[in-house]
Amino acid sequence: MLTFYDAPVSGNTYKVRLLLAQLALPHERIVLDIVGGKVRTPEYRQVNPFGRVPYIVEDGFGLAESNAILQYLARGSRLLPPGAREHALVQQWMFFEQNQVELSIGLPRVWKKFGIEQHPSVLEHYQPRALAALKVLERHLAKHDWFVGGAYSVADIALFAYTHMAPEAGRDLAKFPAVSGWLERVREQPGWLALE
Amino acid sequence: MLTFYDAPVSGNTYKVRLLLAQLALPHERIVLDIVGGKVRTPEYRQVNPFGRVPYIVEDGFGLAESNAILQYLARGSRLLPPGAREHALVQQWMFFEQNQVELSIGLPRVWKKFGIEQHPSVLEHYQPRALAALKVLERHLAKHDWFVGGAYSVADIALFAYTHMAPEAGRDLAKFPAVSGWLERVREQPGWLALE
Repeated sequence: MLTFYDAPVSGNTYKVRLLLAQLALPHERIVLDIVGGKVRTPEYRQVNPFGRVPYIVEDGFGLAESNAILQYLARGSRLLPPGAREHALVQQWMFFEQNQVELSIGLPRVWKKFGIEQHPSVLEHYQPRALAALKVLERHLAKHDWFVGGAYSVADIALFAYTHMAPEAGRDLAKFPAVSGWLERVREQPGWLALE
Repeated sequence: MLTFYDAPVSGNTYKVRLLLAQLALPHERIVLDIVGGKVRTPEYRQVNPFGRVPYIVEDGFGLAESNAILQYLARGSRLLPPGAREHALVQQWMFFEQNQVELSIGLPRVWKKFGIEQHPSVLEHYQPRALAALKVLERHLAKHDWFVGGAYSVADIALFAYTHMAPEAGRDLAKFPAVSGWLERVREQPGWLALE
């Protein structure tokens, strides 16, 4: 039995929702209220010591971190290339996502969406990071339809989540035609669903 | 033939140096000057489109992102647990490292080390993140000697790099006795070497 702790607003939980839908994996979904840090309760920490979402529990085995969850649930499926080198490239893009994309787009998006004030210096700190990350994606996608191995994979799911939120974070994607084209291709994948 | 693009000051390249030493993997090492963005030259971008370090090239196969490199080079060795669940937990901790530890300790460390001025708001932005990350590590290490599977693994290498730099980032580890004890255990591992 697979239990999935979800929170609709989060881009990281969206990745897992997308994967579960596209692989049609049976699961129980528990929706938590993430806004205002309500996932960080002592009760939830008993389940998940990280106190964050997404989180899965499969027959007593608990796993945090969206990209670790994607790789675990996709193992043996069409969404995870089987070769060692292709799998390494999936990981390369996933670590890039968590280090360069998720924070630089995800944080400004949350602040904007919920009207959380930040000092202009903090906002300015993330701007060049977001821009540099989008340029890396654009350069890759100008030459490739997908991130790894010529096919849609969990690397695309991981990168789609926050990249497609860039406009919500105040970042126009008009200057990134290859990224924009790839976003459309992801949206055309069977079983794709929109962020709630 | 394995080529490793290194830059001594980086914690992410240190992880790869440590792994190469501990697994005694033959390689050619190319040292780049990272300070002042000198790795971001057009020549280096021809080799590595990410324009960052570490990077490896093995018989024409290029791979970026320290934690992807660690997992790729450690496959089949004692430093990467073979089971799907244990491997997923290694990834869980590695994504946590790249998202929560590396930036919140690594950036303030670099700014302090090289006298790069930042607005106090930016410094304050990272403080609670660093503290929260160290608390997560402390809670885990209060109950476990290592991060995954009761043995030293690439998860420990990944987390050691920036955690052991916390004092350089102005963060005292005296309040984190379990973290401090684990840092010592890592230093006692065969083949361990200090950051250059």
